[in-house]
Amino acid sequence: MKIQVVENVLKANDAVAEANRRRLRQANLLALNLMSAPGSGKTALLQETIPMLGPENPCAVLVGDLQTTRDAERLRDIADQTIQINTVTGCHLSAPQVAEALKGLDIEQLAYLFIENVGNMVCPATFDLGEHVKVVLLSVPEGDDKVAKYYTLFQQAHAVLLSKVDLLDVLDFDLDRVRSDLAKLNTRAPFIQISAKTGQGMAEWIAWLREQRATIGRDFR
Amino acid sequence: MKIQVVENVLKANDAVAEANRRRLRQANLLALNLMSAPGSGKTALLQETIPMLGPENPCAVLVGDLQTTRDAERLRDIADQTIQINTVTGCHLSAPQVAEALKGLDIEQLAYLFIENVGNMVCPATFDLGEHVKVVLLSVPEGDDKVAKYYTLFQQAHAVLLSKVDLLDVLDFDLDRVRSDLAKLNTRAPFIQISAKTGQGMAEWIAWLREQRATIGRDFR
Repeated sequence: MKIQVVENVLKANDAVAEANRRRLRQANLLALNLMSAPGSGKTALLQETIPMLGPENPCAVLVGDLQTTRDAERLRDIADQTIQINTVTGCHLSAPQVAEALKGLDIEQLAYLFIENVGNMVCPATFDLGEHVKVVLLSVPEGDDKVAKYYTLFQQAHAVLLSKVDLLDVLDFDLDRVRSDLAKLNTRAPFIQISAKTGQGMAEWIAWLREQRATIGRDFR
Repeated sequence: MKIQVVENVLKANDAVAEANRRRLRQANLLALNLMSAPGSGKTALLQETIPMLGPENPCAVLVGDLQTTRDAERLRDIADQTIQINTVTGCHLSAPQVAEALKGLDIEQLAYLFIENVGNMVCPATFDLGEHVKVVLLSVPEGDDKVAKYYTLFQQAHAVLLSKVDLLDVLDFDLDRVRSDLAKLNTRAPFIQISAKTGQGMAEWIAWLREQRATIGRDFR
């Protein structure tokens, strides 16, 4: 009974996700689903990324949070368009929430749509939003054991960003352990070390974004 | 339909939680539900806490994780008894999982039972496990905006631990913001600043634990 309902919820979500994806593809923009634990630096990453993409690449951000509009406020002056989705008790964004939010965006004008999911390494992993690519952040302070623990999330990633690498000097963190855990479950995703604070790795991340954007016409999933 | 099922799941969980609580109370131990984001330092805290409680206070740990037995391995030589619960895709521990795990413990011999929940600030907040007290950790690198964002979790806490305070010097973190957000929603929980690395705040935390343990006979919930 319980399992049946969960399956139905996932099926209904996936149908809406496919419709979202078609709509975003027609608009010729790249849609990214950013997922991580709370406080891994998703918003800080976007604050640095969007100016680097330049005014010729208009960006919108959909921000998912249980409560508050703090992340949207941080991005309001940086992104061309920003919408906050409050999930209240929901532990992830869903495709219908994204579909609803898309109504409020002028997507024909956009080059990139960043969907900042609820800070959570579990639930967002099973809900397709209709994005083109999934980006997973892991921050250095969270520890080097997280890839193996949350493998469903890392397995699906099109890119894995190790954030806050400026803290590698002050924290015990075994980079080789993360690389080795990742190699076992995902050989496609580049592993990019970044610091929104120092700018380290940002050029590599931006180059990856531009490359993904250029493949939009092709079926790269 | 969906809501009905969710309500039934919660009701079934709560009934088992009450049975767990009765059982734990009879055994005269203090059961704590530790909740936080991934990588806030729940396991590191227990690695330091259990030796400080001394051999006269036998401790057991139930560790919840999607995958791996890494946390249980870290605690195996420190706790008197350790059980790893792998939730696979489950984003929180449930009362039936705890009930099942209790069968594997000799609870009459214990002074403390630490239940280390799945690293997640959303789902664990709505599932009573039958614990006596809820302890919520927030680590400095996660940022000073998390209390307002995840208020359901912080509202229920009997104690809030700010962990990794040794990083306050190298990170931007507004302590007053956290204190002020917390004061709006929870006036009961002490706010204890700790570092498992430097030992800061550990004496205050241990004193709080001993005090809670001493009140077991009384109805302090």
